[in-house]
Amino acid sequence: MSFNTFGHMFRVTTFGESHGVAIGCVVDGCPPLIPLTVEEIQHDLDRRRPGQSRFTTQRQEPDAVKILSGVMAHPETGVQVTTGTPIALLIENTDQRSKDYSEIKDKFRPGHADFTYEAKYGLRDYRGGGRSSARETATRVAAGAIARKVLPDVKVRGALVQMGPHKIDRDKWDWDEIARNPFFCPDKDKAAFFESYLDGIRKSGSSIGAVIEVVAEGVPAGLGAPIYAKLDSELATAMMTINAVKGVEIGAGFGAAELSGEENADEMRTGNDGTRFLSNNAGGILGGISTGQPVVVRFAVKPTSSILTPRRTVDRKGGDTDILTKGRHDPCVGIRAVPVGEAMMACVLADHFLRHRGQTGR
Amino acid sequence: MSFNTFGHMFRVTTFGESHGVAIGCVVDGCPPLIPLTVEEIQHDLDRRRPGQSRFTTQRQEPDAVKILSGVMAHPETGVQVTTGTPIALLIENTDQRSKDYSEIKDKFRPGHADFTYEAKYGLRDYRGGGRSSARETATRVAAGAIARKVLPDVKVRGALVQMGPHKIDRDKWDWDEIARNPFFCPDKDKAAFFESYLDGIRKSGSSIGAVIEVVAEGVPAGLGAPIYAKLDSELATAMMTINAVKGVEIGAGFGAAELSGEENADEMRTGNDGTRFLSNNAGGILGGISTGQPVVVRFAVKPTSSILTPRRTVDRKGGDTDILTKGRHDPCVGIRAVPVGEAMMACVLADHFLRHRGQTGR
Amino acid sequence: MSFNTFGHMFRVTTFGESHGVAIGCVVDGCPPLIPLTVEEIQHDLDRRRPGQSRFTTQRQEPDAVKILSGVMAHPETGVQVTTGTPIALLIENTDQRSKDYSEIKDKFRPGHADFTYEAKYGLRDYRGGGRSSARETATRVAAGAIARKVLPDVKVRGALVQMGPHKIDRDKWDWDEIARNPFFCPDKDKAAFFESYLDGIRKSGSSIGAVIEVVAEGVPAGLGAPIYAKLDSELATAMMTINAVKGVEIGAGFGAAELSGEENADEMRTGNDGTRFLSNNAGGILGGISTGQPVVVRFAVKPTSSILTPRRTVDRKGGDTDILTKGRHDPCVGIRAVPVGEAMMACVLADHFLRHRGQTGR
Amino acid sequence: MSFNTFGHMFRVTTFGESHGVAIGCVVDGCPPLIPLTVEEIQHDLDRRRPGQSRFTTQRQEPDAVKILSGVMAHPETGVQVTTGTPIALLIENTDQRSKDYSEIKDKFRPGHADFTYEAKYGLRDYRGGGRSSARETATRVAAGAIARKVLPDVKVRGALVQMGPHKIDRDKWDWDEIARNPFFCPDKDKAAFFESYLDGIRKSGSSIGAVIEVVAEGVPAGLGAPIYAKLDSELATAMMTINAVKGVEIGAGFGAAELSGEENADEMRTGNDGTRFLSNNAGGILGGISTGQPVVVRFAVKPTSSILTPRRTVDRKGGDTDILTKGRHDPCVGIRAVPVGEAMMACVLADHFLRHRGQTGR
Repeated sequence: MSFNTFGHMFRVTTFGESHGVAIGCVVDGCPPLIPLTVEEIQHDLDRRRPGQSRFTTQRQEPDAVKILSGVMAHPETGVQVTTGTPIALLIENTDQRSKDYSEIKDKFRPGHADFTYEAKYGLRDYRGGGRSSARETATRVAAGAIARKVLPDVKVRGALVQMGPHKIDRDKWDWDEIARNPFFCPDKDKAAFFESYLDGIRKSGSSIGAVIEVVAEGVPAGLGAPIYAKLDSELATAMMTINAVKGVEIGAGFGAAELSGEENADEMRTGNDGTRFLSNNAGGILGGISTGQPVVVRFAVKPTSSILTPRRTVDRKGGDTDILTKGRHDPCVGIRAVPVGEAMMACVLADHFLRHRGQTGR
Repeated sequence: MSFNTFGHMFRVTTFGESHGVAIGCVVDGCPPLIPLTVEEIQHDLDRRRPGQSRFTTQRQEPDAVKILSGVMAHPETGVQVTTGTPIALLIENTDQRSKDYSEIKDKFRPGHADFTYEAKYGLRDYRGGGRSSARETATRVAAGAIARKVLPDVKVRGALVQMGPHKIDRDKWDWDEIARNPFFCPDKDKAAFFESYLDGIRKSGSSIGAVIEVVAEGVPAGLGAPIYAKLDSELATAMMTINAVKGVEIGAGFGAAELSGEENADEMRTGNDGTRFLSNNAGGILGGISTGQPVVVRFAVKPTSSILTPRRTVDRKGGDTDILTKGRHDPCVGIRAVPVGEAMMACVLADHFLRHRGQTGR
Repeated sequence: MSFNTFGHMFRVTTFGESHGVAIGCVVDGCPPLIPLTVEEIQHDLDRRRPGQSRFTTQRQEPDAVKILSGVMAHPETGVQVTTGTPIALLIENTDQRSKDYSEIKDKFRPGHADFTYEAKYGLRDYRGGGRSSARETATRVAAGAIARKVLPDVKVRGALVQMGPHKIDRDKWDWDEIARNPFFCPDKDKAAFFESYLDGIRKSGSSIGAVIEVVAEGVPAGLGAPIYAKLDSELATAMMTINAVKGVEIGAGFGAAELSGEENADEMRTGNDGTRFLSNNAGGILGGISTGQPVVVRFAVKPTSSILTPRRTVDRKGGDTDILTKGRHDPCVGIRAVPVGEAMMACVLADHFLRHRGQTGR
Repeated sequence: MSFNTFGHMFRVTTFGESHGVAIGCVVDGCPPLIPLTVEEIQHDLDRRRPGQSRFTTQRQEPDAVKILSGVMAHPETGVQVTTGTPIALLIENTDQRSKDYSEIKDKFRPGHADFTYEAKYGLRDYRGGGRSSARETATRVAAGAIARKVLPDVKVRGALVQMGPHKIDRDKWDWDEIARNPFFCPDKDKAAFFESYLDGIRKSGSSIGAVIEVVAEGVPAGLGAPIYAKLDSELATAMMTINAVKGVEIGAGFGAAELSGEENADEMRTGNDGTRFLSNNAGGILGGISTGQPVVVRFAVKPTSSILTPRRTVDRKGGDTDILTKGRHDPCVGIRAVPVGEAMMACVLADHFLRHRGQTGR
């Protein structure tokens, strides 16, 4: 049992607070002999890094990652590879702006974990949210970069598919667009719309929710397990651990509730490349086990609770008061959740790949 | 790591196939000295039992549970109590109808786990789905009955809130209605509608999806943990392990994606009974930790894949074929998921209660 | 975390008390497609069964095991094989002699877990020791029989190598002798001596300790892991979980403390069959990982605490008193620990085999 | 499942190689609000630090520990306390002497993990042993310092009780002597003898084994659990994870094999301070649960395998060769195992304390 670990055979333990010395993680169980450079990890981290557009928090952190252990130059090839021992990654905190916390030190911000942390631990880190800060997710992205190397033939990509009530047009889905706009949005037109839409929200000091979709292609059939280690249940928990996520669905998801049996069950036909399904309402998972189709998961991210409108709240002494959260913030935290969702998908798949190989030898 | 266990300090391991000798579970970590009778467990099981109306599978299983271990008459009071050692529960399978499986033995039923089991294990139990049968959930309901005893002041109740596209009217929510209709539906009028609606589906040999909501009242603030043991992430995985579930949401859930920060964050005020929230979009959980408000989780259940319309599929030899699944089935498996969802909620809360007490002493 | 489970990928959860309805276990993670019959499990159980000679408890239990789940006739060959899902095993308790417990109900037997159970749980099962009874080990032997099938090329055998101060002559070690005497003793002469020696102890109502050695041959090099999943540390915990065990050692064990570096480190030479070691002080494990040599573990079993001499103790009310434990008992519980030690070795090796295969693909 | 983690509720994950950038650990599950300074951790580390006498490796590492996360100044008192979130500790490697590894790069040193690492992972860190270096134990000592703070009323102390064949005189046991000699030896006279004895071994380039005893006083009755979470089985695994340990025993240990039931079982009497035992052959543990007596564990440490005498071995190409391990080494690695054994004892007790509190509320 652990409060800060996920995964079983590919196992990630994270640590660190937003305003502490550093954040980091330990990846345990990674197979040996996998080529791995710090640049590969940094590449993924840079996609998540804040301050890259006016739509994400202006916190300026280079988020430079260091590998502390678990790799070495291969004695024969000289290529840096994993050794099979724990890979520790460290990211130092550099932009811990000395700020006036008097406002939030004694008041509970609505929608934040302030009240609940205090209820649980008897104190909380009021400086930037402590452990509940989205900053922790940088360590997951780093771990996810390693997970991707465990599964070189699996492609994991994420996209923002809804912002507020505005959904993308799925017919216009183009993965290449993802890198061309600050929203990870695969629909070019909608991305243009989001630019002005989110500007309006940002300027008004408000915030908005979003829905993210992560797709894994190339997943072999057979990963997962029937009941309590279902691939979908582990994806559900993985995504729900991301800050501000309030819902997770697989394939047709909540839409499946409205379908008939005829509409929902994906029919099958054989083909040149083996069995294929004629649709993918299952999201690539049946009975908790991968079908060989793309694995599709979506999750809903609530709007940032830090907004510029005063809100009713209470203070630590039990009195009624108001609060207004100033400072740098994301008008739509969902945006930065895209690479985090990808990382979680990669980690879950790597874990299940190793578990499946262990149990079945395949 | 385990494929058939959930929970950490309140830990449930289940076993058994639909058509084997018996199903059962082992509950490990239950505190000692809790009064527990077999009747209390049977009571919960009877709520889930199939064959109680024409809307659930006609399989006739008494589902009589036996306690094999972990309880004894208290040496002084004579009352049967838990001993702190593992509680094993057994339910014998009695209605394993000798049936012709030649149709499904060599064909993969669309929407079922047939293809994926075979991909994973190299064989599958074609008799009733083996481990992927919903029959396994009886053991969870039994375990949930024990979990409820660990948390006597917490009330966990579930309801069917949507069938197909038809949602209940939340203004008409009446918990007392739940026991008065075969759907666990809290809206009297909608229950009447569901009766004819589902009859139509049943007669046509089709099936339909549903959405279930489970609410826990009386949960103290402070249960859960910040990151990988979030109360919501563990509820998500718990619900997603239930057969046919394709989506899970907490509080406002996917609706939160459409909200602004002002709308979403629940404001707070003090009152006679301590801090209260003026709304519950958070579903009783902030930062992964309970707020003291009702914990609210919803999950979507896909329609049964066993329907009377022939479907395109492939056989084990790789040839194209059709299949039609005869026999007894549920037109809406979501109905029986209600007591299962309650049981999972109770187990997750009991687990977190013990973990919280362990770490904090409170 | 679990109090009643051991192993990770080959994972065994046991349940049941000496005087309850039944004992049993759930084996989770067993690979699929392994031929397995109930007779194979029963065969191992019969080796452990009490009442087979005058030197073990006269409790008469047939210990007939049932497989409740996890196996089926292979659809093509008809051979019963594992399915990859949990294998539940059940052994009903039949000889729960109705006995007068008034003596031990309120007194703590020295050397037993009576006092500590009561300190922990606030009550204890005074009928036969409840969960602390050696009867629980029958379920391990059953699980071990399955573990052996996971590793068909590994031979796991145990022997009693010391009783009281009397050690066997290692030069006379003959594995064939094990089955020819009631002590699992590999030294024919010493076995003859033990017969009269233990008769004397038995008749005087006393008891004596023993040392057991378990050897696994055919273990491939590479099983285990460097630090907290060392093959030796997991063998140590496995053996120490057996009732009455007070010490565990690997290879040279405590003797290594007296050796110099020159004497202790096993030198190596190549040969026709690959690398071999010129000695085996390491007991087949270096740095927590198997060397390919026989894995050798020894454990010390204390004498039964149930003896016919009155002993000073206290009662539940806190008063001084005496106690004399009547009834059927083992003069040397170490004897029956032999098949249990074998089972634990087999389970640990099966677990590590699956873990190694998962991480490395070999 | 994890290869680099120990504990359940008080959970320690370590990382780092002897010759990497840094070593460290993450302590997860520590209760909140415990005062903790870096000096307290450093104090324990300094006791283990090498290079303090001519009897331990001359590697000169300041072993300066940093706390990266999990503590903060209490908002009201200003005292630095734990927050309940993971505490990450970092120790940078500074003395990674650039050395000629050509000798050991391609040869397997007898008694080291060289051969087995290569068998497992396909490569090994030949620079200082990588993960198998005793350097990893520094992180455990750091974690143990935190564990001690979780249990302020428990005193955990260790001592060297045997070096080679020479045992201390238990009648001369004086805890105060421990700090007065470089051996952690509680027998003043024997310590004087060890000084010359070990000097001889050191000068001859040889090495010798040792036995360490760790005693915990003040442990409340009730910690532990009946079967697979026995306090003794978890101490056994904890000690066996320490480098070079080949045997573990509790209380009378292997000596119990030679005792009769009358001699072994500790009798009880009441007294002013509650129940007491008239002896402690049980080593403070009965049925896996603490009795309230001192918990006593001993472990055997083999002699260092790095010696100055050439040894027969094989190389990576499969040829026969000889090897002689030069460089800085410990003539008796058992010495530095004393604070490590203390740390492991403290961690196991802290873990069990939290687990017991979780399950029973006491």
